Amino acid sequence: MTNSSSDDRPGEFELIAKLFAPLSAHAPGAYGLTDDAAAFHPAAGEDVVVTADLLSEGVHFRGDDPPALIAKKALRVNLSDLAAKGAVAQGYLLSLALPQDWTTSWMESFARGLAEDQEQFSVSLWGGDTTATRAALTIAITAFGTVPAGTMVRRNGAKPGDRVFVSGTIGDGGGGLDVLSGKRIQGSPAERNALAERYQLPTPRLALGRALRGVATAMLDISDGLLADLGHIADTSRVGIAVDAALVPLSGAYRSVIGHDEKAVLGAVTAGDDYELAFTAPEAARGAVAQAAAATGTAVTEIGSAIAGRGVTLLGGDGREIPAPRKGYRHF
Amino acid sequence: MTNSSSDDRPGEFELIAKLFAPLSAHAPGAYGLTDDAAAFHPAAGEDVVVTADLLSEGVHFRGDDPPALIAKKALRVNLSDLAAKGAVAQGYLLSLALPQDWTTSWMESFARGLAEDQEQFSVSLWGGDTTATRAALTIAITAFGTVPAGTMVRRNGAKPGDRVFVSGTIGDGGGGLDVLSGKRIQGSPAERNALAERYQLPTPRLALGRALRGVATAMLDISDGLLADLGHIADTSRVGIAVDAALVPLSGAYRSVIGHDEKAVLGAVTAGDDYELAFTAPEAARGAVAQAAAATGTAVTEIGSAIAGRGVTLLGGDGREIPAPRKGYRHF
Repeated sequence: MTNSSSDDRPGEFELIAKLFAPLSAHAPGAYGLTDDAAAFHPAAGEDVVVTADLLSEGVHFRGDDPPALIAKKALRVNLSDLAAKGAVAQGYLLSLALPQDWTTSWMESFARGLAEDQEQFSVSLWGGDTTATRAALTIAITAFGTVPAGTMVRRNGAKPGDRVFVSGTIGDGGGGLDVLSGKRIQGSPAERNALAERYQLPTPRLALGRALRGVATAMLDISDGLLADLGHIADTSRVGIAVDAALVPLSGAYRSVIGHDEKAVLGAVTAGDDYELAFTAPEAARGAVAQAAAATGTAVTEIGSAIAGRGVTLLGGDGREIPAPRKGYRHF
Repeated sequence: MTNSSSDDRPGEFELIAKLFAPLSAHAPGAYGLTDDAAAFHPAAGEDVVVTADLLSEGVHFRGDDPPALIAKKALRVNLSDLAAKGAVAQGYLLSLALPQDWTTSWMESFARGLAEDQEQFSVSLWGGDTTATRAALTIAITAFGTVPAGTMVRRNGAKPGDRVFVSGTIGDGGGGLDVLSGKRIQGSPAERNALAERYQLPTPRLALGRALRGVATAMLDISDGLLADLGHIADTSRVGIAVDAALVPLSGAYRSVIGHDEKAVLGAVTAGDDYELAFTAPEAARGAVAQAAAATGTAVTEIGSAIAGRGVTLLGGDGREIPAPRKGYRHF
């Protein structure tokens, strides 16, 4: 938030009634945000899938990012977790800690961003909390989805011999952050923009995630970096994972702006913020994976295999291991 | 957080595995906090009730408050919302934004506080997010409860003629904040302590809330201040509410430290952070209210009535209206 405060700002309750209550219009159990809590009744035989992500200014987004993009990113990283579990997204709670200098127009853009994404991803605001902070803008979202009981796709089901797949292209999020930080000036402005947009506006793969329910043996979304996140699948499933560096899908923009040599691939597989799906499936399910990809219009690439053992290995064209110095993003 | 950082701090994943995963041991759908999301299957015929509250250092607690108390307060203000809806508390998601200077011992005390409250209130940690912030410690909790479908107690059911009740005593939270800020030095140290503890450690009235399901026509918990919160019931139910100042229950500690004259009562009904329940019930349900109070060992006091009209009125002994200059806490 960069603008100075303004005197005609609505108060806490007016803000909720004017900007946020309309976002709950399609959720009867949100009661127009006039109550302490929301009620949700899953269909018979369904599990509720819940996930939470907190975004802090200066860590997860920049204070001068467009407010609609900040709103969308906060929502989308949560929807991406639901996608990775094969869940149908239903709704979300939004808790906002606002610094002193928020403005009405900033909040209006923020709410407009949420409205657009609600439309795109068929979710509703169910409730939340709006409060002040002495410090940086903080956005905490809890997202709710549903799956038929017992069918949430876990991280722990990979077996040796399973094939490893990713959706979309890898590394664009990290490349976009480099572009936004002024570190990359190669490629065309359009290509640099494409990467920046991937960082600012990830695409939760909800349709693909749902289509992979019953097909994928383990799945997650790539937020810490491909190798680090595959490491979570490897650890939880008690397998090793070998990734063929040459198979990692890089976008044309990434190739132009960052490159496609070994160093560029290493950057792509260790940077975070892709929010693509990484998953394993038995070799016999290759056809089903291809069908899920085609049915949802999502590119899916096979990049390696689960093996007996532990940890994640990145293999070069000659079969030698490429040492990966940094296994992904950690907050501390 | 006041201590300097230490070199033997666990990393993000170690922190989760060591301190937080044990808090999820009784929730099979939390998967030991090793997955992107948690799954919850409500019993047949039950609604899921969800609520979120965000607490920010310097606004909702002081940085040098004991970490176990900070943890408990963050959990309890959420459980209090479930209590106000008549819900059975089930679990919660915890999102933490940690400033740079957090220490292992601080986090251990924080987790120990959660463990103690989980035991006391029969809830489990289901998941969440742990991340860094450049700024103040921020704690965002989403709490989950259940009610038989359609029975969540709303704010909007008060009818003219209903009686107005509160649990416990009013004003202790605000009095405690005054004590902690050094503003109040009357009364005994034990009495001042009692108020400070009420501010630092509210008691969610879960048992009473459940017992009032089907009895209370409207209910909420007092966080903004009694008059402000009764105003929410009045607005949502489209009634007026008249409170008899002489009937507002003040604790012995409040009387000693703050007083019991009109000014002290006015302070009690406009200060926040009591986390008692305020509710309405038909006159014919007085017996049922008394029974719910007795069965759960919770004091309940009748303090006024819902009337035709709008807004909340505080009445003095002679029937005249006492002007309430500040109708409760707003964050902005």
